[in-house]
Amino acid sequence: MKINNKISIILTSGGLDSATVAAMARQQGYELNCLSFDYGQRHRFELEAARKVAAKMGARRHLVLSMDMGSIGGSCLTDMQMEVPKQGPRADRIPSTYVPARNTIFLSYALAWAEVIGAAHIFIGANCVDYSGYPDCRPAYLEAFEKMANLATKAAVEGRLHIKLHAPLLKMTKAEIIRTGVSLGVDYSITHSCYDPDERGLACGRCDSCVLRHAGFVQAGLPDPTRYQENQAP
Amino acid sequence: MKINNKISIILTSGGLDSATVAAMARQQGYELNCLSFDYGQRHRFELEAARKVAAKMGARRHLVLSMDMGSIGGSCLTDMQMEVPKQGPRADRIPSTYVPARNTIFLSYALAWAEVIGAAHIFIGANCVDYSGYPDCRPAYLEAFEKMANLATKAAVEGRLHIKLHAPLLKMTKAEIIRTGVSLGVDYSITHSCYDPDERGLACGRCDSCVLRHAGFVQAGLPDPTRYQENQAP
Repeated sequence: MKINNKISIILTSGGLDSATVAAMARQQGYELNCLSFDYGQRHRFELEAARKVAAKMGARRHLVLSMDMGSIGGSCLTDMQMEVPKQGPRADRIPSTYVPARNTIFLSYALAWAEVIGAAHIFIGANCVDYSGYPDCRPAYLEAFEKMANLATKAAVEGRLHIKLHAPLLKMTKAEIIRTGVSLGVDYSITHSCYDPDERGLACGRCDSCVLRHAGFVQAGLPDPTRYQENQAP
Repeated sequence: MKINNKISIILTSGGLDSATVAAMARQQGYELNCLSFDYGQRHRFELEAARKVAAKMGARRHLVLSMDMGSIGGSCLTDMQMEVPKQGPRADRIPSTYVPARNTIFLSYALAWAEVIGAAHIFIGANCVDYSGYPDCRPAYLEAFEKMANLATKAAVEGRLHIKLHAPLLKMTKAEIIRTGVSLGVDYSITHSCYDPDERGLACGRCDSCVLRHAGFVQAGLPDPTRYQENQAP
């Protein structure tokens, strides 16, 4: 096991961003190991999408971990008592779709798995352009996590593995992300972004995630392949 | 919710160290909220012990989170295929009881819960004296985690909460920990440390954890209340 290798872990939500990240890592010659979380989401369609993305990208492994975020509470994405907001994204406050310490928990599991499979690279689709409200998507946070990660593991202490955290979408607009993905052959019709799909998995077209996703396709000048509920395309 | 409050989260394993930490925090006037993990351990006796400790210490809440560490693998404590070592602790290498990134994952969940309940303090029973093999018990690691934590959450970004990470046992010997706990009225007979208990929950007396625990009582000049299997007291 070398300190520098091309083995990577891709945090794979099933959404547009992480599918693009996977395609970028693959193009750069990394071995892909996709990591997804079943964390009491309101719906399972994103896990289905994650499985499709991992398969299409030729991932070597796909690990889906069950998590108990629901009993911690604090977010409308894990707490069934809270409603998903439909007024559109706002730049001036952190939305209720924020899940406390979510990226920290995801990255911590990625770190554990990285040590077990000897992966020197962790990729996350964090982005701070379109949607700056999430504190755990900011560069200062990601740098602090990487520093901590290299003090945390047996492999780091023994000098066998130096973890590099990659957030290639960090400063890209949604339109740039979509253009990059399309140029790399990503099929966005298999990805899922909607926070509040119907029972068939069709997108609501009105939640923050749908609104941002659709605007990205419009700005990129590309057709939006998202499957929306009847009369709900944004 | 104030930046400085006396609301704390105590990582509570059911072992000797975290019971002592809980007693120390209680004595310093903190409200205790105990957090335990069911992470595919070889046994459930430590969770039973954690429940008893939380109750005895008058914790306001006790949250037990299920985790999926087993499917990550890499440790004899979560992987049923690996054997628990019985040759005694060694200073020169990290033991196979090491769980990859365990403290990072535990602390990340604590951070999430801290944000939800507004706790400014997280206590962990990390120790780097008797057993220096775990990288995620070193001061540099804990400092890096605290720094990352204060960049990670909505509450931190909005200036409502500054997280302080406490590791009061960090430089104490096992004997000092036991003396401190006994002086604060901790009943160590309800705690569980053994990595390899029998089906009744009685300690094996030979694993690293049993050996260190017993040596602590001997050095403290105090009786060892641990319930060992017949003829297995160290």
